[in-house]
Amino acid sequence: MSNVHDIYPDGRITLREVGLRDGLQLVKTFPSTAAKRRWIEREYDAGVRHFEVGSFLPQKTFPQFADVREIVATVAALPGAHGIALVLNERGANEALGSGVAEIASVVSATEEHSQANANRSREQAIANVRRMCDLRDASAHRPVVSVAISMALGCSITGAVDPKEVIRLSEKCFEAGADIVAVADTVGYSGPKAVGELTEAVVKIAGRKPVCVHLHDTRGMGIANASAALDAGARILDGSLGGLGGCPFAPGATGNVVFEDLVFLCESKGFATGIDIEKLVGVRAILRDEMPHEALYGGLARAGLPGKSIKVAAAAE
Amino acid sequence: MSNVHDIYPDGRITLREVGLRDGLQLVKTFPSTAAKRRWIEREYDAGVRHFEVGSFLPQKTFPQFADVREIVATVAALPGAHGIALVLNERGANEALGSGVAEIASVVSATEEHSQANANRSREQAIANVRRMCDLRDASAHRPVVSVAISMALGCSITGAVDPKEVIRLSEKCFEAGADIVAVADTVGYSGPKAVGELTEAVVKIAGRKPVCVHLHDTRGMGIANASAALDAGARILDGSLGGLGGCPFAPGATGNVVFEDLVFLCESKGFATGIDIEKLVGVRAILRDEMPHEALYGGLARAGLPGKSIKVAAAAE
Repeated sequence: MSNVHDIYPDGRITLREVGLRDGLQLVKTFPSTAAKRRWIEREYDAGVRHFEVGSFLPQKTFPQFADVREIVATVAALPGAHGIALVLNERGANEALGSGVAEIASVVSATEEHSQANANRSREQAIANVRRMCDLRDASAHRPVVSVAISMALGCSITGAVDPKEVIRLSEKCFEAGADIVAVADTVGYSGPKAVGELTEAVVKIAGRKPVCVHLHDTRGMGIANASAALDAGARILDGSLGGLGGCPFAPGATGNVVFEDLVFLCESKGFATGIDIEKLVGVRAILRDEMPHEALYGGLARAGLPGKSIKVAAAAE
Repeated sequence: MSNVHDIYPDGRITLREVGLRDGLQLVKTFPSTAAKRRWIEREYDAGVRHFEVGSFLPQKTFPQFADVREIVATVAALPGAHGIALVLNERGANEALGSGVAEIASVVSATEEHSQANANRSREQAIANVRRMCDLRDASAHRPVVSVAISMALGCSITGAVDPKEVIRLSEKCFEAGADIVAVADTVGYSGPKAVGELTEAVVKIAGRKPVCVHLHDTRGMGIANASAALDAGARILDGSLGGLGGCPFAPGATGNVVFEDLVFLCESKGFATGIDIEKLVGVRAILRDEMPHEALYGGLARAGLPGKSIKVAAAAE
């Protein structure tokens, strides 16, 4: 019988590794189930507790998530760890419930145009779907957390600029429908820190005691600056992927999610304890390099090391 | 008879291209004089007006700046453009004055240890040097701007953490010595946005009407986030280099200055007009690729394009 405040404790920041789902969404080669397990277990050892593990979307289209049930189980076996799975409809929600995953994440597009193009449904229908998921949650034994990402919340791949009022209205609807968390998603890395900060502040205000997640992509190099603004505006949950794994279907060559290890450094530098050991985290990149040698990995910490450490090495070499 | 407020107008942000000096500080192959000229002229065409052009350091050690006088002249020939040259001592200052460069930049280390190791002099002696440069300025015909960077202001490659009080004290001394501008420099990309914002705010406070520059490196991926914090704290001048050209002697593999084109996007996204055309600016990277094919270039805008543009292309392809 999970409670969102147990899984996302008040008064602290939670960083989530979304590389195993969002980071793998567009890749052609992907890690074996065993490698995914090592990835999770080594990040757990580094202090990470929240993992987006895959999706319950059609396996034919997304073979990289065919092992989602096993990955859900891998995370569930680690004390204090929390798995998140993406679902888009009732079939997926039922499968996710059956897997025992701790959190079910869904999506509502910020614009009608993107909702139709991406999911072949209206935003109204997407919110009805959230309501149905919350009913299923309430009727379930383990009562997973239900979270909803407002995709394209800071700019849309089809219509361009997005009115923040629409995002606030949709967030309200999701909370009314019973969502435990709303995630503001800059899906295509459209925006800068001013817009991210202002929208986050507005959604935090309507969320009340419910936590707000900000999901950012580093498409145009603004990822960490946007994360900093989101933290200042009261976001409690931030997503990232190891090495910034992942891409953007609308910007060829673009990077994926915010680099997880740099996000940890940002939080620590701002005085938010994450419980994550950056050097151990950087070490996990070896798994990604081995399993997906053609995928570009990004990140400043991996290149330069922690300030104290790299400087000690350099000073000794002088 | 130049005045700092003519060159750095009040009430607006100035972005400076420092790739031609800081970006070339550590490279082994460097652009020809003709290529440097094309670099400057094409960035000028994109709207850039402030260029760090080179240094008056010993040519034997820094052959990449042997053509500094010609580059000073290149910038001076462009209406409204402003050249900046680095000098470390009186000999250099006299040579810089002789070149007619619009701004002479010097350095004071934030820590005594770095001052001795880097320049073989105390911080007191470095400030006496600033005073002497200001005297030379006052006695000169064209009265260049004198700026001073407090290097290692946010963390030192030798001693680690730096007390902000020391940086504030040294900044005061530099202004008292007659400096027109103080630049707070995170030379080794040590810090995050909280520390950058707090230090910038403190230095802006003591600067009064004089402009404060914040000079950032992207060593650990915090560059744009730190720039955002510096802008929020009242910095009026920010440095960057095209493609993030440059490295860090204390962090092998680390990137150099903040990526100039991403910095422009950041400023515009925050509502600060820069007068710079990002797409034209991105186009200038071709010169760097041709002249220095082994140097890594970074940046989100160059990968993904402007949101509107890349999205239009993607939408058309769907």
